[in-house]
Amino acid sequence: MSQRRNIFYAQSGGVTAVINATACGVIETARAQPERIGTVFAGRNGIVGALREELIDTNLESAETIAALRHTPGGAFGSIRYKLRSVEESAAEYQRLIEVFKAHDIGTFIYNGGGDSMDTANKVSQVAQSMEYPLVCVGVPKTVDNDLPVTDNSPGFGSVAKYVAISTLEAGIDIASMPQTKVFILEVMGRHAGWIAAAGGLAGKDRSQPPHMILFPEVTFDEDRFVDQVRANVERYGTCVVVASEGIRRADGSFVAESGTKDAFGHAQLGGVAPHLAEIVRGRLGYKFHWAVADYLQRAARHIASAVDVEQAYAMGKAAVEMALAGIHGRMPIIVRLADEPYRWEVGQADLAQVANVEKTLPPEYISDDGYAITEACRRYLAPLIVGEDYPPYDAGLPAYASLRKVLAPPMLPAWEG
Amino acid sequence: MSQRRNIFYAQSGGVTAVINATACGVIETARAQPERIGTVFAGRNGIVGALREELIDTNLESAETIAALRHTPGGAFGSIRYKLRSVEESAAEYQRLIEVFKAHDIGTFIYNGGGDSMDTANKVSQVAQSMEYPLVCVGVPKTVDNDLPVTDNSPGFGSVAKYVAISTLEAGIDIASMPQTKVFILEVMGRHAGWIAAAGGLAGKDRSQPPHMILFPEVTFDEDRFVDQVRANVERYGTCVVVASEGIRRADGSFVAESGTKDAFGHAQLGGVAPHLAEIVRGRLGYKFHWAVADYLQRAARHIASAVDVEQAYAMGKAAVEMALAGIHGRMPIIVRLADEPYRWEVGQADLAQVANVEKTLPPEYISDDGYAITEACRRYLAPLIVGEDYPPYDAGLPAYASLRKVLAPPMLPAWEG
Repeated sequence: MSQRRNIFYAQSGGVTAVINATACGVIETARAQPERIGTVFAGRNGIVGALREELIDTNLESAETIAALRHTPGGAFGSIRYKLRSVEESAAEYQRLIEVFKAHDIGTFIYNGGGDSMDTANKVSQVAQSMEYPLVCVGVPKTVDNDLPVTDNSPGFGSVAKYVAISTLEAGIDIASMPQTKVFILEVMGRHAGWIAAAGGLAGKDRSQPPHMILFPEVTFDEDRFVDQVRANVERYGTCVVVASEGIRRADGSFVAESGTKDAFGHAQLGGVAPHLAEIVRGRLGYKFHWAVADYLQRAARHIASAVDVEQAYAMGKAAVEMALAGIHGRMPIIVRLADEPYRWEVGQADLAQVANVEKTLPPEYISDDGYAITEACRRYLAPLIVGEDYPPYDAGLPAYASLRKVLAPPMLPAWEG
Repeated sequence: MSQRRNIFYAQSGGVTAVINATACGVIETARAQPERIGTVFAGRNGIVGALREELIDTNLESAETIAALRHTPGGAFGSIRYKLRSVEESAAEYQRLIEVFKAHDIGTFIYNGGGDSMDTANKVSQVAQSMEYPLVCVGVPKTVDNDLPVTDNSPGFGSVAKYVAISTLEAGIDIASMPQTKVFILEVMGRHAGWIAAAGGLAGKDRSQPPHMILFPEVTFDEDRFVDQVRANVERYGTCVVVASEGIRRADGSFVAESGTKDAFGHAQLGGVAPHLAEIVRGRLGYKFHWAVADYLQRAARHIASAVDVEQAYAMGKAAVEMALAGIHGRMPIIVRLADEPYRWEVGQADLAQVANVEKTLPPEYISDDGYAITEACRRYLAPLIVGEDYPPYDAGLPAYASLRKVLAPPMLPAWEG
């Protein structure tokens, strides 16, 4: 085995506006160390690219293209929701991974994802050790939901937070100028964690300004209380702007709106809370309403990404490579907050096992007593994460996003029969 | 009556990202002619502000605030959907308008709206003449739907077109990186006209790129053909991104999704096409899907307004005042296209009667033979309208939008009993 070994980098789960900025950080940092690192291979469609031996050779992409990843949304190499089970249950898959890594002289596995992916990275790390294959496994945090523990925040969240805050501000100004429309409901992502919904709260200085209400998944949805609060806001402020998390549940634990399908991890696919709430408003209050569901638009909105988020996403990728070079194993870089205002942060580290499969929801002290607003403590936490505009370049009115060649490395092994 | 008479300016109907840029053009142009124009009064909530004698004195707003209107979405003075009927049916209302105008020495009425508003402006003009009240009535075009005739395009459209094109591009990149999700549906505004949906087509260079399909209100929705086309796209390209107009109808003329309520003009309130189409995809194809409904977000998205649109919106307001000073009556400024590339345009004029109550839908030559895409001719028309980014200033991560004092002029007449 040569000293100058290769890196395998994979993107996992739902993509973000800045996961490619992390990829950019990984690849540019690796390219700056040609004497110590060979090629960065990226998994085509994430970890499945390793199982299928579909390794994108990033050396065949120009420096300009790699630099453009920093301002390109989506997952440039493809991302998949694919959960490896326990080492015992999925033994063949883990073994295949190590075989592919061996065939391509992979010395470092960098897995860029959420809690599920950190769990996988941790297991791959254990299997490599038990198979006595020298492999440094490094996780890199990524999730719009901001539900990873230990790290102060997750790359991807700041940009969706900025998008949701701006959209709430703009829709709030729009409805304020239309006295006939009383209620506007914006449905946002976040699953079980109310971080994204909370970010909508940054649009207003206090509860007299939109959003007049936030519906958090951490707070049980009570239809009667909701109706009373909407009415009270309309009577007091003339309108009621509601930011509703897709993940709100009734007292019996059921989601207010499930789309009825489940993803590969068995999580219910959510969506449709806003029209459901609008129906309640129509039926019980008779107000004229509008509603929006941002869905992918919110997490793909690179055109209005947070500069802080882009910088942190890049820094996480850079730190992952530096940790690998230092032989730091089974860990991930995290964001450590040093001060709220002026905001200061640094790169820290955490064990993958600390991060795996733990969901960090909004703490009670970030939610107002009545459950419909953010507190000042929450505002202090959120505010720095949306600061700064990192605009992409434009061509003829549209963002000029990167387009990759995505050439696969020649396969060395028989096809995978998984 | 003094020589130096006042202007009454009102915003009407659905607001846009740039209608305040038109207001800025009106007020700044009037302020530059202090020897010829007195005060610009703005109707609180549009024409209803005149009926109720609620006239916002824009002289009490600072020059900085008026300048900031140029980058502020929504309708700063309030906008209402309120249709005056025929001169015979609504005689008392027309008479009241003229009385209020007389009480406040209004010599010019500038009405900023869509086709319904141009009809109202035209009628007010006729009533003033028949009452021998000297009043110059000027319309100013505004509509995100771009459905006004005569003018090459309407201020407000270019910015929503840019938002929809960028959102389609970004969501298309997102779904392309998620191989498990096959279909993404973005619902956009436009009512009976497919201009906004067509703008989504700018996101891709050809039909292999998102959007793979556009559903226009000008094309009858056929569920079987839709299902076949979605399947064909998924099989060919791996995914199918659909931009769907809220106004699509079945062969029997019914809207695919009506929300069940009607606005003040008797138009059905639309919304909910995307989840309806998603249900069809689930039921008949079983593909994993996502959908988004942009609703107000698309027309309030001043953060990504088209620079061409902002410039034209301002120019329309400026031209309206200049026309009034020249005594040009019963007309409106329009945008005249001189060349596609490089794009050149100038301000023209049209009679209000030409514009009133005529909806300009997408011409057949702008829609592909199969009804699911835009043609090159359409692309040539649309492309220049989204060019340039006119970013608002930011403060702490959020756009710094104007906030007005909105002080009403002291009333001179008894309250309106309308």
